[in-house]
Amino acid sequence: MKAEIVATGTELLLGETLNTSAHYLTGKLSSLGIEVDYHTTVGDNPDRLEQILRQAIGRTDLLVTTGGLGPTVDDLTKELVAKVLDLKMELDAFSLEQLKQFFARRKAPMPLNNEKQVYFPTGSKILPNPIGTAPGAIIKKNGKTVIILPGPPFEMRPMFDTYVWPELQRIIEPHTERMNERVLKVFGMGESAIEEVLGELMSLPNLTMALLAKRAEMHIRLVARSSQTTSGEASDALDRAEEKIRQRLGDKIFGRDQETMIGIVGQTLRNKHLTIASAESCTGGLLGAALTQEPGSSEFYLGGVVSYSNSVKQEILGVNEDDLKKFGAVSEEVAKEMAAGVRSKVGSDLAISTTGIAGPDGGSDQKPVGLVYIGLATPEGVQAKRFQFYGERESVRQLTVQAALNEVRQHMLNSERRL
Amino acid sequence: MKAEIVATGTELLLGETLNTSAHYLTGKLSSLGIEVDYHTTVGDNPDRLEQILRQAIGRTDLLVTTGGLGPTVDDLTKELVAKVLDLKMELDAFSLEQLKQFFARRKAPMPLNNEKQVYFPTGSKILPNPIGTAPGAIIKKNGKTVIILPGPPFEMRPMFDTYVWPELQRIIEPHTERMNERVLKVFGMGESAIEEVLGELMSLPNLTMALLAKRAEMHIRLVARSSQTTSGEASDALDRAEEKIRQRLGDKIFGRDQETMIGIVGQTLRNKHLTIASAESCTGGLLGAALTQEPGSSEFYLGGVVSYSNSVKQEILGVNEDDLKKFGAVSEEVAKEMAAGVRSKVGSDLAISTTGIAGPDGGSDQKPVGLVYIGLATPEGVQAKRFQFYGERESVRQLTVQAALNEVRQHMLNSERRL
Repeated sequence: MKAEIVATGTELLLGETLNTSAHYLTGKLSSLGIEVDYHTTVGDNPDRLEQILRQAIGRTDLLVTTGGLGPTVDDLTKELVAKVLDLKMELDAFSLEQLKQFFARRKAPMPLNNEKQVYFPTGSKILPNPIGTAPGAIIKKNGKTVIILPGPPFEMRPMFDTYVWPELQRIIEPHTERMNERVLKVFGMGESAIEEVLGELMSLPNLTMALLAKRAEMHIRLVARSSQTTSGEASDALDRAEEKIRQRLGDKIFGRDQETMIGIVGQTLRNKHLTIASAESCTGGLLGAALTQEPGSSEFYLGGVVSYSNSVKQEILGVNEDDLKKFGAVSEEVAKEMAAGVRSKVGSDLAISTTGIAGPDGGSDQKPVGLVYIGLATPEGVQAKRFQFYGERESVRQLTVQAALNEVRQHMLNSERRL
Repeated sequence: MKAEIVATGTELLLGETLNTSAHYLTGKLSSLGIEVDYHTTVGDNPDRLEQILRQAIGRTDLLVTTGGLGPTVDDLTKELVAKVLDLKMELDAFSLEQLKQFFARRKAPMPLNNEKQVYFPTGSKILPNPIGTAPGAIIKKNGKTVIILPGPPFEMRPMFDTYVWPELQRIIEPHTERMNERVLKVFGMGESAIEEVLGELMSLPNLTMALLAKRAEMHIRLVARSSQTTSGEASDALDRAEEKIRQRLGDKIFGRDQETMIGIVGQTLRNKHLTIASAESCTGGLLGAALTQEPGSSEFYLGGVVSYSNSVKQEILGVNEDDLKKFGAVSEEVAKEMAAGVRSKVGSDLAISTTGIAGPDGGSDQKPVGLVYIGLATPEGVQAKRFQFYGERESVRQLTVQAALNEVRQHMLNSERRL
C-alpha cells in the first residue's frame, strides 16, 4: 500500500510554521508497513492545490491531507478533493449540531462562515474534532482512500490517533510487512559513548538499530521487520536485543517506547507513596511544570518555591545569608539548603532543587554558563551534584529539569537496592 | 521569482527525521521576496526523484535540493539533476584534493566510493563543505537555477549562509517583487470573531491578510508586495492597515512581528521598574518558567510559590482555611488570597496567581475542566477574573499562562491611562 501526504497552508511556505504533521503521520503510517512515497506542501492557492491533489490521487492508494479546513474562503481542501473525485459537497447535520454546541459552550454566537466547516464530500466518514471547529473526513472512491485532517498539530494528532489509526489497522492486509519498533531511552550518555559501549550489538542480525539524539536524551531505535504472521518472532528478537543492551547500559536506560522521564518518576513516586517538593532557581518553575504535567500529579507533588531572587531564597526557603555571600547562589551549599528548606517548609518526603547559570550572560571563568547544581533532600539526608551543560538558555534549563528528575529516579532505584 | 524545494532521503519518509531544512530555506527565500510554491519530499528512489526534479525544473525558476549527496549508490541528486538538464558529470580536482585532506586529518584511508562526491554537472559552481564530505553546487541553465545542498542540517545551513545567501542577493534584481510582512498578535479573540470585527478590512487593496491560529494567540499577517524601489510605499500601506486594525481591535493586540507576550510584559515591567511574583496552582510552575524565559528576567521577577496542595496554599501563602473549605481551591476568593499572599511574602510590586482545573479529571458541573481563576495583586488592591478554557490539559495550562501574562499587561496599560 502506497501513501502520500499533502499539507496545505501558506504559513508553511513562508518559513513561519514547521511542518511537524508530515513527520508524525509518516512515522505512524510506516509503522503499519504503509510506504510513504511523497510529502508535498503547497500554499492556499486553489489551482496549485487542485493540481497537487489530482497528481497525488492519481498515483497513490492512500492520500492524507492536513490543513485547509478553516472557516475562511481560502480554506479549500475538502472542496478541491470533492472536485477531483467528482463528488458533491453535503451538509452534515450532526457536525452542524456539534459546531453549534461548540459555540454555545463558549457562550459566543456562531459566525456564519463557520458553517462551511460542516460540509463534506458525499459519502464521507466524518471524524469529529473535540478541540477545534474543523472535523476531518475519510473518503473512499475507486479503490482510493483520502483522509482529510486539520492543520494544527494539536487538533490533527488526537483525531488521527482516535479515529484514523483503528481504521488503518482494518485496511492493512495481514501479509503486509510491518516494522516492529522498540525505542530505549537513555539519559546522561552521548551518541558516541553509547556507540562504544554497544559495539557489535549495533549490528545484530534481522534488526536495524539507530541512535537518535533528542534535546535532553538519546533514543536507541530498534526495528525488526515481519509480516503479521511472523510478528511474534520479531517481538522475540526485539526482547533479546533489549536484554543485551540493558546488560551494558544498566539504569542509564530510563524508559522505553512511549515512556517519559517524568512519567517514570511520577509512577515510581506514586507506587512508593512518596511525596515531593521543588525549589527552583535557574529553571524558574519548569521543574514544577514537568512534575505537574500529567494528570493525577497532585498525588505526589505537593508544591514548591521558585526562589529566583536571593531574598526569596532566604525569606521563604531559609537559605543562610552568609552562605549566599560566601559560596554564591550557584553553589553546592545553596543547592543543598534550598532542597532541605523546601522539604521542611512543605513537609514532603523528598525535595529537589536547581540553581545554575542558564545564560547567555552571568557566566565567569569559575562559574561558566551551563554550570548547575542539583540538590536532593530525603529522609536520609541532603546531597547536591554539579553538572556542566552546554547549549543556549532554553537547552540548559531543559537539561537541568531532566537531570533533576533523573536524580530523583536514581535515588529511588538506589533505595530499592539498599532494601 | 518562483522557487521550489525538493528534499530527498528515505529517512524523511520513515518518520525518523523531521525535515527542518525546508522550513529554514523557505524562511530565508521568503525574506528575499522569492515565492516558494512547493516543498516536495521524495525517497532515494531514482525514478521518483527524477520525475520530481523534472516537474520542479519545468515549473519553477529556482530549485533548491537537499540530500542525496552521500557516497552510496542510492545518493543520486547530482546525477539526476545532470540528466534532467542534459549535462555531463565531471570530476572537480579541487574538491578531490579537499576530500583527500578531510580523510588525512582523520588519519583514515579515503573509501573509494567517496570519490563519487566530487563529480558535478558540467558548469557547476561548487560550494565547499567544511563540515562533511559532500560539497554542494549551483547550476544555471536555460534561465533556471538549481542549488544542490547536503541533507544534514548542520552541513546545509552553514553552506547556505556562507555561499548561497550572497549569491541569491546578487541574483535578485532590484525590481523583484519583495514581500513586506507585518504580523499583529491578538490574545483573547478567536479566528471568526476577528474576521467579523475586521470585516471589509480583510480585503484592502494592495495587501493580503491572513489569520493564523496559534495555540494561545491569533496572528494577523499582512503582506504588501513591492519592488526594492517601492518598498517605502508598501511600508506606508502596512502602517495604514495596522492603524485601521488597531482602531477596531484596540489592546486585544498585544504585539507585532517578533514580539511575544512574555517579551512585552517583561519589557514593560522593566521600563516601569516594577517587580512581580507568582503563585501557581494549575500551571504548576509554567508561569514562573515563562516569566524567566528570557535573559535578564531577574530584573523584574523575584520568585514565586507553586502551591499545588492546599497545605502549601495555607502554610506558605496564608490562604484562609475556611475560604478553602467554603469556596474550594478553584475560586475567585482563593485566587485573590494567593496573589495577595505571594505579594506580601515576596515583597514584589505586582503578583499574579492561577488556580483552575486543568483536567482531564477533577471537573464537575459547577466547576468544569478548563475553569480557571487568575488573581492579580497590585498596590491598588486585589482582583480575580474567571476564565473558561477548552482543550486538553496542556492547552488549558498554556492558555492560563498566556491569560495571566495578559492580565499583567492590561493592568499596566490601564494604570498608564489612569495617570
